Amino acid sequence: MTFSDRLDQAIAQKGSPALVGLDPFLDRIPTEFAAVHDPGASRAEQAASMGDFLCAVIDVISDRVAAVKPQSAFFEVLGHDGVAQWERVVGHARDAGLLVIGDVKRGDIGSTAAAYATAFLTGTPKTDPRTLCDAVTVNPLLGHDSITPFLEACRESDTGIYILVRTSNPGGEQFQTKGNPTLTNQIADAVVAWGEELIGSCGLSSVGAVVGATHPTELKALRERMPRTPLLLPGYGAQGAGAEDVVAGFLPGGRGVLVNSSRGILYPARDPKTPWRDATSQALDQMRADLAATGAC
Amino acid sequence: MTFSDRLDQAIAQKGSPALVGLDPFLDRIPTEFAAVHDPGASRAEQAASMGDFLCAVIDVISDRVAAVKPQSAFFEVLGHDGVAQWERVVGHARDAGLLVIGDVKRGDIGSTAAAYATAFLTGTPKTDPRTLCDAVTVNPLLGHDSITPFLEACRESDTGIYILVRTSNPGGEQFQTKGNPTLTNQIADAVVAWGEELIGSCGLSSVGAVVGATHPTELKALRERMPRTPLLLPGYGAQGAGAEDVVAGFLPGGRGVLVNSSRGILYPARDPKTPWRDATSQALDQMRADLAATGAC
Repeated sequence: MTFSDRLDQAIAQKGSPALVGLDPFLDRIPTEFAAVHDPGASRAEQAASMGDFLCAVIDVISDRVAAVKPQSAFFEVLGHDGVAQWERVVGHARDAGLLVIGDVKRGDIGSTAAAYATAFLTGTPKTDPRTLCDAVTVNPLLGHDSITPFLEACRESDTGIYILVRTSNPGGEQFQTKGNPTLTNQIADAVVAWGEELIGSCGLSSVGAVVGATHPTELKALRERMPRTPLLLPGYGAQGAGAEDVVAGFLPGGRGVLVNSSRGILYPARDPKTPWRDATSQALDQMRADLAATGAC
Repeated sequence: MTFSDRLDQAIAQKGSPALVGLDPFLDRIPTEFAAVHDPGASRAEQAASMGDFLCAVIDVISDRVAAVKPQSAFFEVLGHDGVAQWERVVGHARDAGLLVIGDVKRGDIGSTAAAYATAFLTGTPKTDPRTLCDAVTVNPLLGHDSITPFLEACRESDTGIYILVRTSNPGGEQFQTKGNPTLTNQIADAVVAWGEELIGSCGLSSVGAVVGATHPTELKALRERMPRTPLLLPGYGAQGAGAEDVVAGFLPGGRGVLVNSSRGILYPARDPKTPWRDATSQALDQMRADLAATGAC
């Protein structure tokens, strides 16, 4: 089964397009993960405690989300100890039946892009396949030969990529909205072309696009421009977008979209007496309910 | 001392703008690093053997180059075992008196970019400072708030960044040369603006630019557009550019440029009877001589 088919099925089964981003900001991890906050702990102990937290988050949410999106930067802060926890967390999520979208935003010349595709999607003979991602985010600045190795990896291993088309952050407009056609529209057209040979039986491609939920008007136009492209919409929650902002991304039947919230689920505002698991679980229920209330999914 | 000052001094001291890229393609590493090629070796053993090779390369070249540029993708192929070797190799290069430019091409929204800047430039209280880079390559697609955390890190730790302005690969033209001004020129102007507050006593900024040596005409125009920007020129050697192609990048006195060769130094064509160390050493001497013969440096 292609990535797009697996994802489409998982979203239908879990009944929600909610995607939880695993962004382990160390200073926001609950205090019960003591080694994270202990100046006397080693880096390996700190990383393991961070991994304990993320695995516990996965256990809280896995019955209600199709996928998780670990963010590589927060693991790399702890060096190879952090990357070891990346592998553990990815494996834990896959064992829990979740799809894993590695938010790595890699992009490089062909031979190097091939190495990144191996690192995250296909593995070497010595890679534990449980530690590989189902999809990764990719930066397209370097153009077609930086994407081709990922497309080959997608074909080889039934995985997917999400290409940055319009990012959620304020600075995204500096380059992305300039030009005629805009850089964003140029990338969107390339995403459609790159994805044509990777369309699954669900009708969607395994080549997706990242479009910030913080730009609802652009989202509508980009959905029309990329009608068979799975969208990953960051920016929900802590970055300011709400459920109504993502409506334009959905295809009929509520398909073709993942809406990401990271900080809003991992670190919800809570009364100190409320256990973090309860607060996280309630935040996810609220997100699912808010999205469902739009009627779009 | 700012990164730009340290680099300017190191280039003058070593007498060459040659930069060696550490791209450990596993199948090209000399056979004497047996665990790299042993199907029975563990991933950790394979990674350690790769690290042995790179440290040996550093020992061969460190008297004749100012800096090395490890490429993160080839380490990440071996997961956390590879990243542990990244830390070892970076430390070995720094101990050998070299500047280390981490070719990581990261780029993400502000809070995530801050994590990457911590991971590679400033570290956490638990980071061994020997494992941090003097500079990293950065992808600017996400705009100003994806760059700001790196600028802050540069100020805080006297480090630098090289922003992708015009990449060396064939696909680079797909987006970079489009628009009026072109995306490349938009980025170049932003590089100048971002670098203004990080100009060292040598007159150069610690905010540099990556410009492919494979585009000599564009290089000339970009040097005029970015007169105080250190340039990192990939594409020399295996990617097709020669010494004459990089001439336009130099400032008076042969300053402001690093010319990168990776595969051409690490895996030079050689007679099987020639030890790899000799072949690598000769390839570096040839590169230095070819660059010097231009009279530009």
